Amino acid sequence: MTGMERIVYRPARDEFAYTFGGFMPVAHVRSGDVLQVVTEDCFGGLVRGPADLPSQVCRMPYLNPVSGPFFVEDAEPGDTLAVHLISIEPRRNWGVSATFPHFGALTSTAHTTLQPPLEDRLWVYEVDTTAGIVRYRATASDHSVDLPLEPMIGTVGVAPGGFEARSTIVPDTHGGNLDTPHLRAGATLYLGVNMHGAMLALGDAHARQGEGEACGVGVEIATTTTLAVEVIKGVPTVWPRIETDHQIMSIGAARPLEDAYRIAHRDLVAWTAALTGLDELDAYQLVSQAARAPIGNVCDPNYTVVAAVDRQFLPSPTTPYRGVHDRLRQLAADHR
Amino acid sequence: MTGMERIVYRPARDEFAYTFGGFMPVAHVRSGDVLQVVTEDCFGGLVRGPADLPSQVCRMPYLNPVSGPFFVEDAEPGDTLAVHLISIEPRRNWGVSATFPHFGALTSTAHTTLQPPLEDRLWVYEVDTTAGIVRYRATASDHSVDLPLEPMIGTVGVAPGGFEARSTIVPDTHGGNLDTPHLRAGATLYLGVNMHGAMLALGDAHARQGEGEACGVGVEIATTTTLAVEVIKGVPTVWPRIETDHQIMSIGAARPLEDAYRIAHRDLVAWTAALTGLDELDAYQLVSQAARAPIGNVCDPNYTVVAAVDRQFLPSPTTPYRGVHDRLRQLAADHR
Amino acid sequence: MTGMERIVYRPARDEFAYTFGGFMPVAHVRSGDVLQVVTEDCFGGLVRGPADLPSQVCRMPYLNPVSGPFFVEDAEPGDTLAVHLISIEPRRNWGVSATFPHFGALTSTAHTTLQPPLEDRLWVYEVDTTAGIVRYRATASDHSVDLPLEPMIGTVGVAPGGFEARSTIVPDTHGGNLDTPHLRAGATLYLGVNMHGAMLALGDAHARQGEGEACGVGVEIATTTTLAVEVIKGVPTVWPRIETDHQIMSIGAARPLEDAYRIAHRDLVAWTAALTGLDELDAYQLVSQAARAPIGNVCDPNYTVVAAVDRQFLPSPTTPYRGVHDRLRQLAADHR
Amino acid sequence: MTGMERIVYRPARDEFAYTFGGFMPVAHVRSGDVLQVVTEDCFGGLVRGPADLPSQVCRMPYLNPVSGPFFVEDAEPGDTLAVHLISIEPRRNWGVSATFPHFGALTSTAHTTLQPPLEDRLWVYEVDTTAGIVRYRATASDHSVDLPLEPMIGTVGVAPGGFEARSTIVPDTHGGNLDTPHLRAGATLYLGVNMHGAMLALGDAHARQGEGEACGVGVEIATTTTLAVEVIKGVPTVWPRIETDHQIMSIGAARPLEDAYRIAHRDLVAWTAALTGLDELDAYQLVSQAARAPIGNVCDPNYTVVAAVDRQFLPSPTTPYRGVHDRLRQLAADHR
Repeated sequence: MTGMERIVYRPARDEFAYTFGGFMPVAHVRSGDVLQVVTEDCFGGLVRGPADLPSQVCRMPYLNPVSGPFFVEDAEPGDTLAVHLISIEPRRNWGVSATFPHFGALTSTAHTTLQPPLEDRLWVYEVDTTAGIVRYRATASDHSVDLPLEPMIGTVGVAPGGFEARSTIVPDTHGGNLDTPHLRAGATLYLGVNMHGAMLALGDAHARQGEGEACGVGVEIATTTTLAVEVIKGVPTVWPRIETDHQIMSIGAARPLEDAYRIAHRDLVAWTAALTGLDELDAYQLVSQAARAPIGNVCDPNYTVVAAVDRQFLPSPTTPYRGVHDRLRQLAADHR
Repeated sequence: MTGMERIVYRPARDEFAYTFGGFMPVAHVRSGDVLQVVTEDCFGGLVRGPADLPSQVCRMPYLNPVSGPFFVEDAEPGDTLAVHLISIEPRRNWGVSATFPHFGALTSTAHTTLQPPLEDRLWVYEVDTTAGIVRYRATASDHSVDLPLEPMIGTVGVAPGGFEARSTIVPDTHGGNLDTPHLRAGATLYLGVNMHGAMLALGDAHARQGEGEACGVGVEIATTTTLAVEVIKGVPTVWPRIETDHQIMSIGAARPLEDAYRIAHRDLVAWTAALTGLDELDAYQLVSQAARAPIGNVCDPNYTVVAAVDRQFLPSPTTPYRGVHDRLRQLAADHR
Repeated sequence: MTGMERIVYRPARDEFAYTFGGFMPVAHVRSGDVLQVVTEDCFGGLVRGPADLPSQVCRMPYLNPVSGPFFVEDAEPGDTLAVHLISIEPRRNWGVSATFPHFGALTSTAHTTLQPPLEDRLWVYEVDTTAGIVRYRATASDHSVDLPLEPMIGTVGVAPGGFEARSTIVPDTHGGNLDTPHLRAGATLYLGVNMHGAMLALGDAHARQGEGEACGVGVEIATTTTLAVEVIKGVPTVWPRIETDHQIMSIGAARPLEDAYRIAHRDLVAWTAALTGLDELDAYQLVSQAARAPIGNVCDPNYTVVAAVDRQFLPSPTTPYRGVHDRLRQLAADHR
Repeated sequence: MTGMERIVYRPARDEFAYTFGGFMPVAHVRSGDVLQVVTEDCFGGLVRGPADLPSQVCRMPYLNPVSGPFFVEDAEPGDTLAVHLISIEPRRNWGVSATFPHFGALTSTAHTTLQPPLEDRLWVYEVDTTAGIVRYRATASDHSVDLPLEPMIGTVGVAPGGFEARSTIVPDTHGGNLDTPHLRAGATLYLGVNMHGAMLALGDAHARQGEGEACGVGVEIATTTTLAVEVIKGVPTVWPRIETDHQIMSIGAARPLEDAYRIAHRDLVAWTAALTGLDELDAYQLVSQAARAPIGNVCDPNYTVVAAVDRQFLPSPTTPYRGVHDRLRQLAADHR
């Protein structure tokens, strides 16, 4: 954490990446550096009003652009990259959501059934950072509702390694399109490093989303996201993990959804056992009674589930990952 | 709600039911009656200490006994039965949990793989109703942790109709083994009536459980559960629904888990549209951004997911089901 | 097999059963008896032409009627009931298939998505027993095609035990709506007996079906089905099994489909090991290279997969189930 | 098909590819060229006897090597690449199969449960090309069985496009680890071209496998595979398709397994409608009664199902893909 630098990165329209792995780094950063990254929304900023239907203005594979990748010096396979989310600030006073043909939890796909898609429709939300709300407006009647503004990063990950390059639409062990509301300011995300330099990238922020992102699209926004990176040498991480001041969380990504649940809980059991000295079955029992299981997404190529347990429910709430998360408090204070 | 009566029911050891449908009623009740029902734990009270391994002392199909069924007068197919949960009081100062061979989310089954089961083990919890905690004790080390006491009914339902009798292990449209922490005091459960008399039964309470009931077993307890029943004539209900002072919730039960999620959300979208006058896609959008999706169980023959939305996020928070839930506040006040 | 009797059973319109379990026996039979059973089609014979859309003329739960149940003397829990399928003869010179709203593999359900159903349509097939063909006729153009007549029993099972009564739509350990083309004349079906008298019932024959019954409906026919029953004392059977002159087969029923596959193969591995003396992993290896896995249905509440291995690929092709299947050849000869 | 050339390609140990996409082409070929490609087995030839346990001698990501990719001139996105499988000849007189820790259909994974893996074991098969058999030998007893030699290509595909590079372990729209016995000599495989040059690669042949490849590993062999490539300009293909003299087949790859089934059948319905002039529902009906659904694998990251219909059951059995498959007969004759 010495020689900490503040790096600002704002990609031009054609500088985004569309896979984890395969894209060349846009900048080099060092462990401890603070990055201020401009992220575009999942539609590349092309959807700006009710007439801009995503199915018409977007073109595959130019969906879900991420900013990066950033080459993290000294990050090697077998290490863990800690990503401290310091702040996620909307860049516009609006966000969009939509139905996208044959995408989302409450529709079948064009590949699996003979049914036509639901109607394409767009919702434009007001984003009021002062009031801390996003305003939903119905399209077919004149109802409106204020919902809490809870900005989150939908897509963040590293290169998957093994010569692979995965679409930014996909969540997996390398992170990616995790789409969980728990990736918000105050959270430290741990990702296993799979190749030299880690190759961190992020994008696809939401002003908020429901659990599971039922319609397939959150309240999509562009942001300025401030984060710090830190390399934890010699500590491997298999599935993405999150730490906050109050909770530890494991993320599973798979189909069917129960496998995402299982992965997250199996990892949380191992983590709990490692932290507390409980044997594996005792940890299984504790997690079974104490954990929560917020669903991330039920629409992406892999579904995501978070398994979360309050630190106060752990017998010896030692700090995981060598106290790395504790530094986020100072970083957040410095940021304000 | 006239002629309200207080009925106390305590089944003898051989008076429990093991299916919804197929068992004869143990008592007749009327809309508005308050019932005080003694429920046994899922092991029939046979598991009382570390030596009583469920796999040895329990015998199929005598698992998950329910108290009832109660014949509800004037309940007919096409009506809804509202079950007001007034209080759920543990009857003993302990509860049990266990690993059960090849049962639970983090084990495969004996039918699907060649792997041996995990070790059979039992955990005995202290239940302290005064302090409002349950005490977890590790079995292989001397750790212990206090968790909040949050009593809930695991299994509650009506006869499924269609000549069927379903094991009490199974959750489905008729209710059954829903295993969600949201079935606690203060909640009104709505169940569609499928046959003359509805045939309500309940049991399998937990002092608490994590979301998904990962190991397959909550902190299992016997209770005295106080509830009121109310028939809502001419209002059909397909999937179980819950109403509290602050939320409306739909429950889905299915495999794979994403279908439970879909069912719960598809029903919540319809309910939201009916309550608010939003058209279906507008309701879908609102639910997508505003709903939470707490997982019930990932171990029973059908998995369960709850879709929940805060009433404050509904544009016109009219009272669903004709204000029926509002009566629970008075019932709870009377009970105290 | 002494005192063999030939019993003819033809139910009246209101004498069908709609669950396995819960219905009273229509006749008593003894081990060795030959039964000639008239079965109605899955629509109860109400669909007779293009105007009779199943969604309009059928009414739940009066779908998928079965003939029976037959009380089999001396059949007790822990025994196996062998059902020798001697012949399955169509009773009419036509059969019907249909799309049924939100039912079938290539449509979503009304519970899980917001999409409208596919169009309701009916297909009437000619059934020509002399030529051994069924004639498909397109409805929107004038194409027709002859397909082989391959009569099969879609639904056959025993009472599930455990106080349960399961809809005839459901396949599970007790048999039921297995919907596999392998339940044809020449096959012996083995079912575990779960309660005193077994309570055998059958119906829902198809003139033929594709693997998986994609549209949810085969070429539905009424039949006269001739079968012999035989009680194998003291031999338990967990999942339904089939034996023919050339193959042994295990049937799995579950969701998701991979669990049906796993169940069928896990059972076939155990059966193979028991028959041949191979250890379990050696049997697993042999089954992995030698077995076929014809899909039964991908539309019912549980999906079905058959795991089949040729007897010639078993190292010691001893006769399973004590040579019981061998008697079917004689029964078939007597029948002709 | 002018200027046809015969190209022989034999990769050195370090010249294999491990993803589709991301690897540079090893040779340029033209439409009509015949390629003789040496393929290594899925273990890279490192497993040669009972002591060479794959879990010990293999190292990720160096599993499932493919030979190629071959740049096919004039193949552009929107075209289809036809791959005529002329012959698949084993290069050694043995093949191997194995259990691999936590891999295969009858085991859970290390990510999803707490159960230990099954025992690691290896089976060495004799491959007798003259007799046309592979000989299974039990490891724990002295049984042996001869099974038919039915050589097939397990992994064949093109670059997925969209900047992606997918592990050769994965089957998807681009082909890849399809693992179906139907990819044998006499079959033409159609793959949609996703990027300039298509980038065809293949490997992972099996002397035979059961449907679903239950233990996760076929009888793995190295081969000399002779194939011809042909570019069909302006004809797009979404999911892999196969044509033989007697059948047309569509392949679906997904989890859960029912989605692989749905994808294959939805594609076959569309193909059938396009070939015959039937409307979509008429084609759905025909496929529902006439198709078979052989399972490919139930162990890879995506499961695979083939939907197959006999040409004789199509009302107008026009030659699909412009008669391209017909050329395979001549190619096969030339090869002999």
